[in-house]
Amino acid sequence: MAKDMTLLWGTGSPPCWRVMIALEEKNLQGYNQKLLSFDKMEHKSQQVLDLNPRGQLPTFKHGDTVVNESYAACFYLESQFKSQGNKLIPDGQKEQALMYQRMFEGLTFYEKLTAVIYYEWFVPEEERHDSALKRNKEALTAELKLWESYLEKLGPNTYLAGPAFTLADVTVFPTIGTIFRYGLSAERYPNLGAYHALMKERPSVKASWPPHWLENPKGDDSLKDL
Amino acid sequence: MAKDMTLLWGTGSPPCWRVMIALEEKNLQGYNQKLLSFDKMEHKSQQVLDLNPRGQLPTFKHGDTVVNESYAACFYLESQFKSQGNKLIPDGQKEQALMYQRMFEGLTFYEKLTAVIYYEWFVPEEERHDSALKRNKEALTAELKLWESYLEKLGPNTYLAGPAFTLADVTVFPTIGTIFRYGLSAERYPNLGAYHALMKERPSVKASWPPHWLENPKGDDSLKDL
Repeated sequence: MAKDMTLLWGTGSPPCWRVMIALEEKNLQGYNQKLLSFDKMEHKSQQVLDLNPRGQLPTFKHGDTVVNESYAACFYLESQFKSQGNKLIPDGQKEQALMYQRMFEGLTFYEKLTAVIYYEWFVPEEERHDSALKRNKEALTAELKLWESYLEKLGPNTYLAGPAFTLADVTVFPTIGTIFRYGLSAERYPNLGAYHALMKERPSVKASWPPHWLENPKGDDSLKDL
Repeated sequence: MAKDMTLLWGTGSPPCWRVMIALEEKNLQGYNQKLLSFDKMEHKSQQVLDLNPRGQLPTFKHGDTVVNESYAACFYLESQFKSQGNKLIPDGQKEQALMYQRMFEGLTFYEKLTAVIYYEWFVPEEERHDSALKRNKEALTAELKLWESYLEKLGPNTYLAGPAFTLADVTVFPTIGTIFRYGLSAERYPNLGAYHALMKERPSVKASWPPHWLENPKGDDSLKDL
């Protein structure tokens, strides 16, 4: 039981989800947690700001050690609990290289996703341009095709960095899960669709599935035409 | 001698600089390298695209293993050459946590820098707004104050994650070096100024200093009023 850990999080936030999957994979259940509301601006509450001057979720604490950045928390958990739960960094040189490469490409993937689905949240009304949103959608489509091709090359039933589940899956799956939540077509992206289906059944992913998605199984389908 | 490594890079690119510092720190001199020109769009040349479908620099290869993302290459080099050159990931739990945290905050720092200095490069003319650039500058200023306070708290002559030089310095220093190249005031940001001065003397940083900065020691000073 991870009673010396605290996670402040928001439902449907890919960065929060990364940390929750990592905690599950390392058998760190039973941590203290508090679900906060972005809509109510609770990520800017004093409780968060005391631990995280950026006022962002996730905010994560282990004992008196604070590690808020989601990738940082994932690396930290794997490093501190190496022999507990599932091993998340493979030993092989090639597997490791591919894991690191995909993890960091995953940040670009996430950025390209948010530039589309959060466009109105990020850009004040008087600065919005249809041309910009169109370009962002094209960039996301190009990104999707790239990941589709990566999975195609690895073959069926594979994880993002090969046969083993790794930190690449912990960190990038929440982006892919979100894209399907927004209606991406598994027919047009069959390899991403198969990966999504595989990951949905993984216990760590099931245990951390965003609660408001469970309540409302059908999401906004604004990415269905990509 | 690192004859089995190849780096394609651009001068003054913080992501390229990260990898070059890591290579120096791990005593991996003598690698094959090719300096390419962003102005001539050589990062989109076939030579790059063959190794890096994103057409970006750095593009890095070790034997037949390709690791292009700069953070990925830094992690990979530390992992593959653990006992060679300088150790870049500290053993202590707290030091490690802080290193990971600062490394990933460093990506936000870099993003906020580029949103100012590359604004015209990123945003087509008809979509530019003074209000957006002003907001980006305010966000960069807030970011600078945060890092200034981090260094203040650690005390003098310290690295970004404490007394030891770590991957946090490898990855974040190129951003800080660039900010000073654009004229940041060391009087207004004395802790960042002291850190910059400390790092400038480090052999790995000296050996990888952007050649076009050496040729033209005085840069654009558009960040002098931040």
